[in-house]
Amino acid sequence: MLYLIGLGLGDAADITVKGLEAVRSCSRVYLEAYTSILTVGKEALEEYYGKELVLADRDLVEQGADEILKDADVTDVAFLVVGDPFGATTHSDLVLRAVNAGIPYKVIHNASIMNAVGCCGLQLYNFGEAVSVVFWTETWKPESFYDKISKNRAAGLHTLCLLDIKVKEQSIENTMRGRKIYEPPRFMTVSQAADQLMQIIHRRREEGEELGMTEDTVCVGVARLGSDDQKICTGSLRQLVSCDLGGPLHSLVVTGRLHPLEVDMLRVNAEPDALEHLQMIDSSTYTS
Amino acid sequence: MLYLIGLGLGDAADITVKGLEAVRSCSRVYLEAYTSILTVGKEALEEYYGKELVLADRDLVEQGADEILKDADVTDVAFLVVGDPFGATTHSDLVLRAVNAGIPYKVIHNASIMNAVGCCGLQLYNFGEAVSVVFWTETWKPESFYDKISKNRAAGLHTLCLLDIKVKEQSIENTMRGRKIYEPPRFMTVSQAADQLMQIIHRRREEGEELGMTEDTVCVGVARLGSDDQKICTGSLRQLVSCDLGGPLHSLVVTGRLHPLEVDMLRVNAEPDALEHLQMIDSSTYTS
Repeated sequence: MLYLIGLGLGDAADITVKGLEAVRSCSRVYLEAYTSILTVGKEALEEYYGKELVLADRDLVEQGADEILKDADVTDVAFLVVGDPFGATTHSDLVLRAVNAGIPYKVIHNASIMNAVGCCGLQLYNFGEAVSVVFWTETWKPESFYDKISKNRAAGLHTLCLLDIKVKEQSIENTMRGRKIYEPPRFMTVSQAADQLMQIIHRRREEGEELGMTEDTVCVGVARLGSDDQKICTGSLRQLVSCDLGGPLHSLVVTGRLHPLEVDMLRVNAEPDALEHLQMIDSSTYTS
Repeated sequence: MLYLIGLGLGDAADITVKGLEAVRSCSRVYLEAYTSILTVGKEALEEYYGKELVLADRDLVEQGADEILKDADVTDVAFLVVGDPFGATTHSDLVLRAVNAGIPYKVIHNASIMNAVGCCGLQLYNFGEAVSVVFWTETWKPESFYDKISKNRAAGLHTLCLLDIKVKEQSIENTMRGRKIYEPPRFMTVSQAADQLMQIIHRRREEGEELGMTEDTVCVGVARLGSDDQKICTGSLRQLVSCDLGGPLHSLVVTGRLHPLEVDMLRVNAEPDALEHLQMIDSSTYTS
């Protein structure tokens, strides 16, 4: 049996009881280590589970799937994923390989940012399509996430922005020279994502385009959701550029039309400066 | 402290380790019992947790919140919710009351249908706004969910349809006579939801409207997700009208534009009749 087990979002104790029992019963346990991270590392998980874990990077999952699935028809193998197992496309691929090899699989679900973000006070069924915000480079500054946010906002919907993670990336030079030297991991912060959005807004304003959001749009930054030191910070986009929510992972929500109950909930976690702004929204047509 | 603890989707063992520890440490534990259900009842949970649970129906949560929050500033109280605690608006209200009363609160997340539905093979970031499908009556047949589905499909997005639950409802006669007699609980099935959608399609076709979806649109019915006897059934809307997925809870997904990897995953759970249909989609412009 191949078990795909979600670890949730905080630390080792966020696994479900069912998940923990499965981990302990498996002969091999892989920890997917490139689409997300917990607030604790591999060693803390190994100690908590009482099991040795094999780190599974992108290469292993995408090219070494046979190794992961080896003998899984006669023994139990666990594949651990931060959040829920179906957050990333790559895990569908592993399931398909198992099915094609006649290996039964079982999913043990858990919280992921896609549903846990509801704790910021915005209703999950008022969210439109989620977007990914990637790190810009000197020569590559995609803006498609801005267009999707605008489209959601036009329909009154909030947008969850998943922020880029670069783990085990090689520099262009090292890639070209075939050197297996990796850059330090990078995790986009709420501040960086807000800054990229600001740049898009400025550029489009200069070009006279109609704007789907502005510097004053209410946004929510969240960090380390589900952990004891999680941070939720509500403010205008401009305010979030200068916020410091600490270590990874961060996500950003751009709000659409706000319901009065949502405004009340946002206020619980609002920056002092943002309170006035929310007050304003509260009494505007926004909430109607 | 007020703990809001998600129970996940299957049975008693789907609670997280952190959640279970919190439940066991609380002096009072409420089980929210009107927005969703697990595959096991209150007694099974009480035995598993080693704690007595107080069933919290809509009346208690919405009008008796003071009772739930009583002394929560000096003792620990747990409020258990199937899925994740922020699936329903009503729980935001409880949090706001706690905040206003100066009671600290903590959320322990878990899987909910909003993210666990990814296991059917459709990518979560290809979902648009979620909708609720309510039981029609003789005189009240709202169609707004159909319009939202159409809008999502026009943007290429899938739609998660949450199906109606009627728990502790009174008949009009009993309400008028002030008799506290409740109807048996009702849970909308995938078949019933598909049937209501078919009726809307027929009506709109007769009126010459352009259709956002048809009887041939690929849909996915899911039942008891996360439990050992979960069912996932992929087929055309027409096929799902006659499917029987067993006991509650059910949800329905109406697909938008399908990615080839999504089609491959859908095929894993497809009805034999639906395989040909998916094959057709696979080779059409749909996947482009």
